[in-house]
Parts: sequence; structure tokens; C-alpha cells
Amino acid sequence: MTSSAVEFRVRYAETDQMAVVHHRNYFAWFEMARTEWLRQRGHSYGELEKDGILMPVTEVNAKYHASARYEDLVRVTARVASFNKVRLIFTYEVRLAETDQLLCTGRTEHTFINRDGQVVRLHRTHPELVALLAEEGDA
Amino acid sequence: MTSSAVEFRVRYAETDQMAVVHHRNYFAWFEMARTEWLRQRGHSYGELEKDGILMPVTEVNAKYHASARYEDLVRVTARVASFNKVRLIFTYEVRLAETDQLLCTGRTEHTFINRDGQVVRLHRTHPELVALLAEEGDA
Amino acid sequence: MTSSAVEFRVRYAETDQMAVVHHRNYFAWFEMARTEWLRQRGHSYGELEKDGILMPVTEVNAKYHASARYEDLVRVTARVASFNKVRLIFTYEVRLAETDQLLCTGRTEHTFINRDGQVVRLHRTHPELVALLAEEGDA
Amino acid sequence: MTSSAVEFRVRYAETDQMAVVHHRNYFAWFEMARTEWLRQRGHSYGELEKDGILMPVTEVNAKYHASARYEDLVRVTARVASFNKVRLIFTYEVRLAETDQLLCTGRTEHTFINRDGQVVRLHRTHPELVALLAEEGDA
Repeated sequence: MTSSAVEFRVRYAETDQMAVVHHRNYFAWFEMARTEWLRQRGHSYGELEKDGILMPVTEVNAKYHASARYEDLVRVTARVASFNKVRLIFTYEVRLAETDQLLCTGRTEHTFINRDGQVVRLHRTHPELVALLAEEGDA
Repeated sequence: MTSSAVEFRVRYAETDQMAVVHHRNYFAWFEMARTEWLRQRGHSYGELEKDGILMPVTEVNAKYHASARYEDLVRVTARVASFNKVRLIFTYEVRLAETDQLLCTGRTEHTFINRDGQVVRLHRTHPELVALLAEEGDA
Repeated sequence: MTSSAVEFRVRYAETDQMAVVHHRNYFAWFEMARTEWLRQRGHSYGELEKDGILMPVTEVNAKYHASARYEDLVRVTARVASFNKVRLIFTYEVRLAETDQLLCTGRTEHTFINRDGQVVRLHRTHPELVALLAEEGDA
Repeated sequence: MTSSAVEFRVRYAETDQMAVVHHRNYFAWFEMARTEWLRQRGHSYGELEKDGILMPVTEVNAKYHASARYEDLVRVTARVASFNKVRLIFTYEVRLAETDQLLCTGRTEHTFINRDGQVVRLHRTHPELVALLAEEGDA
């Protein structure tokens, strides 16, 4: 099971008056790591959408272990945890890049639908992506 | 020149570590007041988009006079300041609902385009909206 | 077990290019309902923070049943699901206000800490709030 | 007049249903470039805040020339345009990193205050920063 990571500095706009990153923002970070996971394997979620296939989030979970703060350099790692024809699950870790301290763990669940909201079977239109996800999800 | 207003309580998620509303959020508030301006006059920006007409923002300005804070009840007022066939300008005021204290003034400029990015002439497809905007913008 | 609700119209800024509300925004909505839950019972999270007590989120979960869209009128309901001295759990429902259609269910878990990050015992400083939460959490 | 730049990929969460980056997000990007400008010159806005000095935004402006889209690699450049004892002005450019196409230009104006909201004179407490800003602003 291979992973991909993005590294970036926390934005001021991501903080709240508790002087830490607001908890909802981690889901935008998970999404960045998901984008990168696909990109590093030769795929693009943007291209998938242009092909008429959406990958909406159906369930999310996050546990917050420690706070990310303004200017922190963080690293977000994404892995495919499981995949079958209708459901894809990614898991995530957010760590301080310099100390490797764990800040947050998370999980997002997705389906594949078309613009009309109907569940689509990726293996007809995107067999390479299916093969990739299946290999990762089973590993 | 008539105006429309929305009133709502500041969200925790809208604050930053300065313990005030982050300045970018006022543009989401202006947008709410713009939506309401159209709605109160029998139009809907959502419907306009479904008709294939987009109203992108081409320029914005805001001046911050005092800070909005978590749980404050704020009132955002929108007015059409000017309108011609290719450009629409709204102006805004954000005030504390209870004291009427002025927090922010702003301005947004818009064009009308189709999904291909081409400038469209609203008066062919939406003459009623054009009449309404022209009346307000000239007033 | 009593609940509190907030009702509001979906902002354009809350949508993403899938033309639905981006999933992270529901956590800002949960927070609004939490704020309202306290407010309707004579408490204020803002006041609690001024007393030096923070209520950070330690875990969240959300399931997305259907999409909220721009201009939808939504109603978000919050309930205290459980409370003991060190942990408070809220649960949430997001529904379309007009049809009562369920869009999203969620759960957030909180601790109580001071500005130094140490767990605090609310019953010494805020016995009334503790009594209220205990009553709700046990109900 | 020297500049600093940040380069990053547009997040999905930054798009709206027009399928472009929502206009308010450029202000978060300007802030990133401002942070970087200080950082590259040996200063940190986070440190300044710890010293009790805040740099709130008092006015902003942005012109949108072309749209940034999901997965675009963008480069945001910040410059100090002017500085006197009570007012600091930054200007910004957002460009596509690969083609150098101009997407947005902007401007933010700041004052320096303490936690009580009183204007502070930086030259007493932070003479090095004042010297740096003055040199840039005059250049």
C-alpha cells in the first residue's frame, strides 16, 4: 500500500480565534493529498470530472491529536485503504514536517457518479484507474 | 436607489487568530446580500446560471472600519450603484445589527458571460432583469 | 434530550465545482448549531472562552446523504449525545427546511482545556453549565 | 523594490460552482505571499504577533483578469508598495506558474496595533523591521 504526500505551510486564513487551524480545514488538506496521490500515478481528478465522472465524499472522519498553527510546515499523506466497484476509501495522516509529530488522522469514503447523480462503473470507462485502485486497496 | 439586507450571526469558523472575522469573509457576506437583492425583486442568481449566464466578479474593494467578532449579529446591505450593458456595480455596508456601528464598506464589479466565457447581452434574454438593474443603477 | 436548530440559506461561496456545498463546510454549520444550543440555554461559547475555557474538537464524523445546493434553505439541528467530566459529544442533522429531506448527519467530540492546553474541570468554575450538559447527556 | 513569491497548486476546496477559484480566496493567497515576504527577510508575522503587535488589514482591492482553476499551479508575488510610520501597503500579482499569464492583481493596506487596538510605533520595538520596510517602500 503506497502513499503520496503534500507539504505546505499553514495559512493565516486557516486559523481561528483559538489560534490553531480550524478543524474543518483538514478536509481541504486531505483533498490536496488525494489530488496528489492520483497525480503521482498519472491520473488527474480534474480530468476524471471532464470525462463526466464525479467522486463525491459520502462519509468522513477525523481525529485531532495536536494542533497545527500558523506558519507550521505540515505534511499530509494519503493512502487508498480499500476499493471495490462502488466505494473507495482513503486514509490520511497530518504531521509536522520537521518533527514528524502526528497532528491528525482521517478517512474519507467516496462513490463514483455521473453528472446526473447515477452511480457509474469505472471499469468500463477507466480500466487503468480501476486496476491501480484495486491493487492499492487490496495490498 | 433601493437596497436589500441580510442579517446573521458571525460564525466561529469565520474568525482568525486575531480573534476577529478574517477580512476575506466579507466578500462571502457581500455575495449573500447580492443574492438577497435579486431574490427580493423576484430574480435568482441560481436561475440565471441555469439559463447559462454567469456574473463573475471582475474587481472588488473593501474598507474595514471596525472588526466583526464571533457571535456578533451583523447586517449586510447591498445596493446597485451603476449598471450599463456590460458592467454591473454593487456597493455594500456591513453594520452591527444592534448598534448600527459601521464595520465595513465595499464594492464589487461584475460582467455577464456565458459558459464559454463570452460577454453576453442580457437585454435579449432577460429584459426584465435589465430593466430592473437599469432603473436602480440610474436612480 | 432537547435540541436546538439554526436555519439559513446556502451561500454561493460554500459551493465547489461539483455545484454542491463542499463537504468541509458542514462542520462550520455544526458549529453554528452548537453555538445556538448553548445560546438558547443562556450560555455563550464566546463567554466561556473569555473565562479562559476552550472546547476544542477532538474527533468528528459526517455522513452525506444528499447534497445541499446554493440558495437552499437548510436547517441544522444539534443535540448533546453524551457528557462526562472530560468529554462532550454533540450530534447533528442537516435537513432541507422546506421538505425536511435529510442531507447530512454528524458528530463532534470535545474536551475542555485552558489556554495552556491543560484539561480543566468545568464543575468548579461553571457548575450550571455542567448541570445542564449532564442532564441533556443522560436523557 | 524587491518581491517574494509563493507557488502552489489550486485546491479543489477553493473552487465554486462557476468551476473557478472563488474570488475571496485570492486574499488568503495574498496573505501567504506577505508571510513569505517577511520570512525571506528574516522576519515572521507570527513572531510579531507574539510580541503583541498585530497588522490588521484596513483596505483591500483586487482586479480579476483571468480565472484560476483546480490543479493550476499558481505563483503569487508580493511587494511593499509604500510604508510610513502608521501605514503599510503591499501589492500583489497572481500568475499561472507555467505560462506567466496574469490572473489577478491586488493591494492590501495595513496598520500596526497592539492587543488593545491602539496604534503602535514599530520603530521603538522593531527598528530592524522598520528599516527594512522603509527601504522597500521608498525604493
